[in-house]
Amino acid sequence: MSTTITAALIIIGNEILSGRTHDKNIPHIATKLNEAGVQLREVRVIPDVADTIVHTVNEMRAAYDYIFTTGGIGPTHDDITSENIARAFGVSLHRHPEAERILRAHYTADQINEARLKMADVPVGASLIANPVSAAPGFIMGNVHVMAGVPRIMQAMLDNVLPTLVGGASVLSVSVTTNLPEGTIADGLTALAQRYAQTDIGSYPTFKQGELSTTLVIRSPDAALNDSVANELRALIASLGGQVIPTPSV
Amino acid sequence: MSTTITAALIIIGNEILSGRTHDKNIPHIATKLNEAGVQLREVRVIPDVADTIVHTVNEMRAAYDYIFTTGGIGPTHDDITSENIARAFGVSLHRHPEAERILRAHYTADQINEARLKMADVPVGASLIANPVSAAPGFIMGNVHVMAGVPRIMQAMLDNVLPTLVGGASVLSVSVTTNLPEGTIADGLTALAQRYAQTDIGSYPTFKQGELSTTLVIRSPDAALNDSVANELRALIASLGGQVIPTPSV
Repeated sequence: MSTTITAALIIIGNEILSGRTHDKNIPHIATKLNEAGVQLREVRVIPDVADTIVHTVNEMRAAYDYIFTTGGIGPTHDDITSENIARAFGVSLHRHPEAERILRAHYTADQINEARLKMADVPVGASLIANPVSAAPGFIMGNVHVMAGVPRIMQAMLDNVLPTLVGGASVLSVSVTTNLPEGTIADGLTALAQRYAQTDIGSYPTFKQGELSTTLVIRSPDAALNDSVANELRALIASLGGQVIPTPSV
Repeated sequence: MSTTITAALIIIGNEILSGRTHDKNIPHIATKLNEAGVQLREVRVIPDVADTIVHTVNEMRAAYDYIFTTGGIGPTHDDITSENIARAFGVSLHRHPEAERILRAHYTADQINEARLKMADVPVGASLIANPVSAAPGFIMGNVHVMAGVPRIMQAMLDNVLPTLVGGASVLSVSVTTNLPEGTIADGLTALAQRYAQTDIGSYPTFKQGELSTTLVIRSPDAALNDSVANELRALIASLGGQVIPTPSV
């Protein structure tokens, strides 16, 4: 008996959509959530547009167990996540006393200003997520976890959130890579996938230095089952005249 | 007078959501589309789930001028994009004669099999996108452009699509980086952003080797306007005792 606990990630930021910034948060969050027994089911990248944030948050928090957001909680005019999370929940924004205390302790008297104190404004009812890197906290409102976009800060915040999540089964995986192209193993793979419908078998071609290889990833919460499928896959590869080779990094 | 032409990207693949594969396509597509006068407004990463693909494609193709998808058009059982694009448009899948000819010319007689020929199946009414890397084509159905997920193949397909797009104004940008932290320039920046509401000014903090810097990106279709704002920004930075430094790579 395993429960499936789902999550979605909302990446808020014009800089991702313009191509300026390369998102590095998706694989980290996906991996850490899975280790905690939470399956990432959808990611949306949306611009810094108030109504888009409100609409997206409300649609997704109803559809998934946990929502995570990155970006838009800094001190500048383009940081509009917190006020729009409040709007999504129909509550007002207030200056959180503990967040203000943290900021006043972190900055010197001549550094503290209204822009920095804005980072203490969270929706009424939110609890804080500690930020050991740069002080300004994230927050949790309902099932929505609001984090910074800078990877180092996001990762530290996520580490503080993970122990609070109630997870289900982690999905385990085994990878088998072959020098055979996808098209050669596809028929045998389809038959295998049908026989082991409890597993999710993905097929991923890679080109590295002109060499083509195919990595087959078997995923399910059952390690023994994954190993059985991997053994059948290795036999299938051998029967087709292929070889099992080291899995390339991705 | 400038027209805004919008696009959205749908990344179809369990491997991105599991954290196994790091998406490298978003920044490339965002940059190339902008050069063609098309603004990327949303990205969704969704799993290899039939109904999710249908629902997402139909919601997004109604909301944006152009839709691009990556992933799920290979020969294996987990490649289900084409059949679900057909479902989204309420048409059937058929074996495209030209696509079949391309595949039969690319593979040897003992390589060609039903799994590979499946890559010639496209929705009725679709036109092909040439694939100079590995032959199997993508396709265009309505305003939806269906491309491979492997970056090298996707990039070659996108190069073939770009000349067919009718773009509006490209968004140009100027970046100014300072050693000042965001919180110090935030107030002056807010005033500047209000005075130049035709531009989008983003503020992006970076930590590199323990050094904090802030990059301010001014974006609009008007190069002269962007330069004016950049000059005012440099003056603001100087007035706050800061320095303009080289923009770090991201």
